[in-house]
Amino acid sequence: MRRLRLVLEYDGTAYAGWQRQSAAPSIQGTVEDAVSTLFDSPTRITGAGRTDAGVHALGQTAHLSTASALPAARILEGLNALLPGDIVARDVTDVAEGFHARRDARLRVYTYAILNRARPSALLRHYAHHVSDRLDLSAMRSAAAGIEGRHDFAAFRVMGTSTATTQCIVTVLRIDEADRGTVLVTVGADRFLRQMVRMIVGTLVRVGRGALAVDAVAGILASRNNAHAGPAAPPQGLYLVRVVYDGDPPEHETPGAPWMV
Amino acid sequence: MRRLRLVLEYDGTAYAGWQRQSAAPSIQGTVEDAVSTLFDSPTRITGAGRTDAGVHALGQTAHLSTASALPAARILEGLNALLPGDIVARDVTDVAEGFHARRDARLRVYTYAILNRARPSALLRHYAHHVSDRLDLSAMRSAAAGIEGRHDFAAFRVMGTSTATTQCIVTVLRIDEADRGTVLVTVGADRFLRQMVRMIVGTLVRVGRGALAVDAVAGILASRNNAHAGPAAPPQGLYLVRVVYDGDPPEHETPGAPWMV
Repeated sequence: MRRLRLVLEYDGTAYAGWQRQSAAPSIQGTVEDAVSTLFDSPTRITGAGRTDAGVHALGQTAHLSTASALPAARILEGLNALLPGDIVARDVTDVAEGFHARRDARLRVYTYAILNRARPSALLRHYAHHVSDRLDLSAMRSAAAGIEGRHDFAAFRVMGTSTATTQCIVTVLRIDEADRGTVLVTVGADRFLRQMVRMIVGTLVRVGRGALAVDAVAGILASRNNAHAGPAAPPQGLYLVRVVYDGDPPEHETPGAPWMV
Repeated sequence: MRRLRLVLEYDGTAYAGWQRQSAAPSIQGTVEDAVSTLFDSPTRITGAGRTDAGVHALGQTAHLSTASALPAARILEGLNALLPGDIVARDVTDVAEGFHARRDARLRVYTYAILNRARPSALLRHYAHHVSDRLDLSAMRSAAAGIEGRHDFAAFRVMGTSTATTQCIVTVLRIDEADRGTVLVTVGADRFLRQMVRMIVGTLVRVGRGALAVDAVAGILASRNNAHAGPAAPPQGLYLVRVVYDGDPPEHETPGAPWMV
């Protein structure tokens, strides 16, 4: 069977998350409905990662199998005509039959947007986490440095999904200042545990507020106990920016707030 | 009676516009409900301009009269606690008893955001107008130069509200490129006719696409006939950025996309 790779951008505000559910609208279910209509045949898709309710994506990646002979460019066009405005297919490409969006992913990159100023934003309320206390970014960067690398991240997750291992390799954990009070936390890793980015960000925000010592973060990581970490930062600041596979061209840096990508 | 000036930011997506209506949620009605609750007394507000359904504001200005003795800072805090997340009070100040938000306004500034790239944006679908054809900004700027100044703007409005005059003084009409394909049209004038900014932008977009000659725009303005202008650009790209009164401190320029202000 022909296999396709889809790259998807979405506004997660109106969805119960990536994963198909019977009672609530999901990204997966909405995209499956669109491809099934386009191909006139029930079609399932498999995503690289399960984003939670309210979490956004600029480069979620999924695969599907189809008997359709439509050119990829026409499938891209057809999908965007069928999808609602809050989900956009960015790319559709033919890939090898064995390609698996989740298992073959080498790197996933998330960005978390914090609006760090006194006044909340009416326009960004679904797109950033508002923190009114002035954050000490240099303390946050020091704490972040101790999280980069290969570690057991059991402390930075919530329970609910069993995983074979809680080891992850965090290759990037960067904190940048963007326009007018926006702080962007970028986290790249080979794999992520459930709510891992939000638990890391929630912990770093405590450090930035002065409510947790920089040194304490390494201890929390070593404890492997999630009672000491977090609380998880809320979903609306989180963006799945991209998923990288073997053979992908190197991605140039795209600085700036994620809603502008 | 004590008179207060309010500066309001809002996401217009969920509202039928500024003006209070019986059957649909409005910005005015929602803010009036909040101030009436706060003061425990029915309180009306008067806005500087009536934004349409889906139009946003960063600096809409309104006035109200109240017998309340609460300090302005407490009123600001109380209002933001009562308002929904898509309306934020930015400022509350005591003003002279005769202050009138609409009649006393000397200058109103709007920004219109166009996302000019092939691909639509899932995240900005309510916050910018997507134009996939590459726009010729230099042609648009030449056409815009002929619109600046004091003119009869009858050609750039829709009917529906009677006005004593269709003369306006457009002091600013600027076209800037911002991040990654965003084009911002800034229009400042002493007064605006109904949908005037959207009619001007819709006309300039036709010029930018090459569908209307630069020279034709002066003729449309001179015709005073709105059948030749437009069509009106859609509401979601429009932001009421600020309203200026005598004695206001000079505002420093805030370049960049309006959802970041």
